[in-house]
Amino acid sequence: MTASQAKPRQRKPQVLSGFRDYMPAQMILRHRIIDTFRTIFERHGFEPLDTPALEHIDVLLGKAGENEKLMYRFRDAGDREIGLRYDLTVPLARVAAMHQDEIVLPFKRYHIAPVWRAEKPQRGRFREFWQCDADIVGSTSMLADAEAVSIAAEALTAVGLPNFVIHISHRRLLEGIAVISGVDQSLSGGVYRSVDKLAKIGGAAVIEEMVKSGIDADAATRVLEEVTQQGTPVELLERLRPRMTAYEPGLKALDELTELFTVLPGLGVADRAYKLDLSLARGLDYYTGPVYEAIVSEPNVGSVAGAGRYDGLIGNFLGRDIPATGMSLGIERIIEVVQEFDLLPTPPTVAQAIVPVFPDTLLEAAKLAAELRSAGLNVDFSMLQHRSLGQQLQYAGRRGIPMAAIAGVSELERNVVAIKDLISGEQVEIPRGDAAQYLLDRFTAG
Amino acid sequence: MTASQAKPRQRKPQVLSGFRDYMPAQMILRHRIIDTFRTIFERHGFEPLDTPALEHIDVLLGKAGENEKLMYRFRDAGDREIGLRYDLTVPLARVAAMHQDEIVLPFKRYHIAPVWRAEKPQRGRFREFWQCDADIVGSTSMLADAEAVSIAAEALTAVGLPNFVIHISHRRLLEGIAVISGVDQSLSGGVYRSVDKLAKIGGAAVIEEMVKSGIDADAATRVLEEVTQQGTPVELLERLRPRMTAYEPGLKALDELTELFTVLPGLGVADRAYKLDLSLARGLDYYTGPVYEAIVSEPNVGSVAGAGRYDGLIGNFLGRDIPATGMSLGIERIIEVVQEFDLLPTPPTVAQAIVPVFPDTLLEAAKLAAELRSAGLNVDFSMLQHRSLGQQLQYAGRRGIPMAAIAGVSELERNVVAIKDLISGEQVEIPRGDAAQYLLDRFTAG
Repeated sequence: MTASQAKPRQRKPQVLSGFRDYMPAQMILRHRIIDTFRTIFERHGFEPLDTPALEHIDVLLGKAGENEKLMYRFRDAGDREIGLRYDLTVPLARVAAMHQDEIVLPFKRYHIAPVWRAEKPQRGRFREFWQCDADIVGSTSMLADAEAVSIAAEALTAVGLPNFVIHISHRRLLEGIAVISGVDQSLSGGVYRSVDKLAKIGGAAVIEEMVKSGIDADAATRVLEEVTQQGTPVELLERLRPRMTAYEPGLKALDELTELFTVLPGLGVADRAYKLDLSLARGLDYYTGPVYEAIVSEPNVGSVAGAGRYDGLIGNFLGRDIPATGMSLGIERIIEVVQEFDLLPTPPTVAQAIVPVFPDTLLEAAKLAAELRSAGLNVDFSMLQHRSLGQQLQYAGRRGIPMAAIAGVSELERNVVAIKDLISGEQVEIPRGDAAQYLLDRFTAG
Repeated sequence: MTASQAKPRQRKPQVLSGFRDYMPAQMILRHRIIDTFRTIFERHGFEPLDTPALEHIDVLLGKAGENEKLMYRFRDAGDREIGLRYDLTVPLARVAAMHQDEIVLPFKRYHIAPVWRAEKPQRGRFREFWQCDADIVGSTSMLADAEAVSIAAEALTAVGLPNFVIHISHRRLLEGIAVISGVDQSLSGGVYRSVDKLAKIGGAAVIEEMVKSGIDADAATRVLEEVTQQGTPVELLERLRPRMTAYEPGLKALDELTELFTVLPGLGVADRAYKLDLSLARGLDYYTGPVYEAIVSEPNVGSVAGAGRYDGLIGNFLGRDIPATGMSLGIERIIEVVQEFDLLPTPPTVAQAIVPVFPDTLLEAAKLAAELRSAGLNVDFSMLQHRSLGQQLQYAGRRGIPMAAIAGVSELERNVVAIKDLISGEQVEIPRGDAAQYLLDRFTAG
């Protein structure tokens, strides 16, 4: 340690563009939301998993495709090509292959962790951000997809965003609609891309786009009619069934969605919380079955969770296909919205009370702090023993600590504690033995 | 996404040398320990903080000194020199400077996060590992140091390592002992280096080493006598006081330690949990006051926590000194020991019960799962609806799920649930409405 012995040169304190510190008030909210999601994942029997931040570049370059250029990649001291984790799905595929002997299929795991992408920094978009995924590997059952949807519903409700609708569709059903509408199969990509924009650009523009991509105008019109039909999921599926006989994968998709929609109410997902939305295509080509996306309309914040079934991806490292489905909570967006609309009011500090100190009674103050902590209270033991009581309470106020438990000489003599509410200024004297319970009651009373 | 459309080439699933996956059973234990430490930090009023994994290299190259070569450093796409976080102290110093307007001093924060070092991988040493620090910035008070010691004591006790002793010393006191023993000040570095090895190499070898480093043999003998005196902290300090009058910083150190040892019992630290150990020097030159190190003797695992006061480091980015003290829990070593000695028995899965499914009663099984979850149970909803009940229970057994809650046609007709203990094989029938409470009781009963 020679550097520290030298006279410290003053270095510039700065973070990299697109990166940020999470200061205490933000961390308290982040912890609360992450803990809530963890509890819900575990309630559903999903196991925690974590993987390294750094991986061999050859491992990372699986799914990224054209986003490769956004990857943080470099050579380490051993001249290995390595990179920073880009998402949580590629590590899951690697784990499923590397640990196949110890993993029991179906494997249900959640993973909440940062990923890194060298994106152009802009408002609300960072180069380091967290992802929050729950996936089921090794099951073709629609019960897996139903679980994914129900987890999303519970998670959004739990953080104060109950006004969402989970839009549900199925890749093979949209394919089938293209087929029975008379779209040439080579042009079906144009159908997905255009239909996915329906909510944004409207029906006429969707037809126009499809026609521009080479699709026959009548066929385009029929596609739009099909995907904009209204009704309950069961009604819509039954209406499609007779026409879908021409396309076997479409029939299978109808069966799958029927099973999914049968189970959802049982898992506790309210009717108003989901809908069959055949215009939902989602941009990613790797989805192979049901796809879902949770849209929050009140407050109007748009998409906050989604994903779907991707049976062709996880087997990448195994050399054979393994079915997989899951759900990704847009945790950074959710945190942003919860903060902006104050949906989960959280205090600016973890401390619930400060115990001020006085030079002559340090030991007694320490004892009081220890007593209150033993009772389960988060207690800041003041370190300002050479400052006045007023200055110590001012310090507590600046941190947002709501209460003070004061045991000065006069209180000690009478075996009481003065409890001061630092917001209202109100002060009461409580017998020493009852102080912890009094404070606990104050907090549970809200 | 073009990559996924191509026939997947089989890639080799591997992790970088020195890195590892945390599989579910390990993560369950890690979460338990990390959550325990978080709770204790917050109980003491320490605020959570997190900082980016990547920093400007100029920020990182503060404390690292000769360890610079272990840093993961590279150039990003914008040709900036950047590196991966090497410890949690440099980011704290940067935060203290960057956010000085919003931080209220004394600032108490904890930070539990991974750091990266390109060390030679070996048993128990990884290139990605977590650190767990709690520090107080902006206070010269010994109450801050006492808090650090008490947090370490509580943390070790809480994870099943109650047989520790926190060795406490003071840099200025050891300096003073060198001075009053007649060691030339230019040779005092040799005193610290040699004395620190006392427990390992014994007194004779320590004297020999000091002499080899140029220290007069009589002075070396006197140093050894001073640092090996036995007694309570107060006795030792009082015995030193008259002789320390020649060295003013040593007298101040005596006053500081006296205050520290006065407060520790009040904070709930048991007498047997700490001792004044004047042979403790700790290797790092940047400590400026009290230093501490927690040694666990039963099981015999050595040092698991430590740190001390470092008043010269945090001000690095501010251009002025700011006092700071803190404590670092050796979280990776602690997790390893807790696992090896099974100190906190944790289940291999988060799931407490499985709800098997049958093709004809999917909706009813989903309802049962939702009911049990609402009651607070972690329930795995089986996805094996095309397998026999026996196969589903076998799946649960392989995951280590201890209970099954079965509602087949026969149970549904009679409005009961069959609860099967998958370890003992014992099975009972419980009225549907009582099933959740029955399971909860099983878990609280242990």
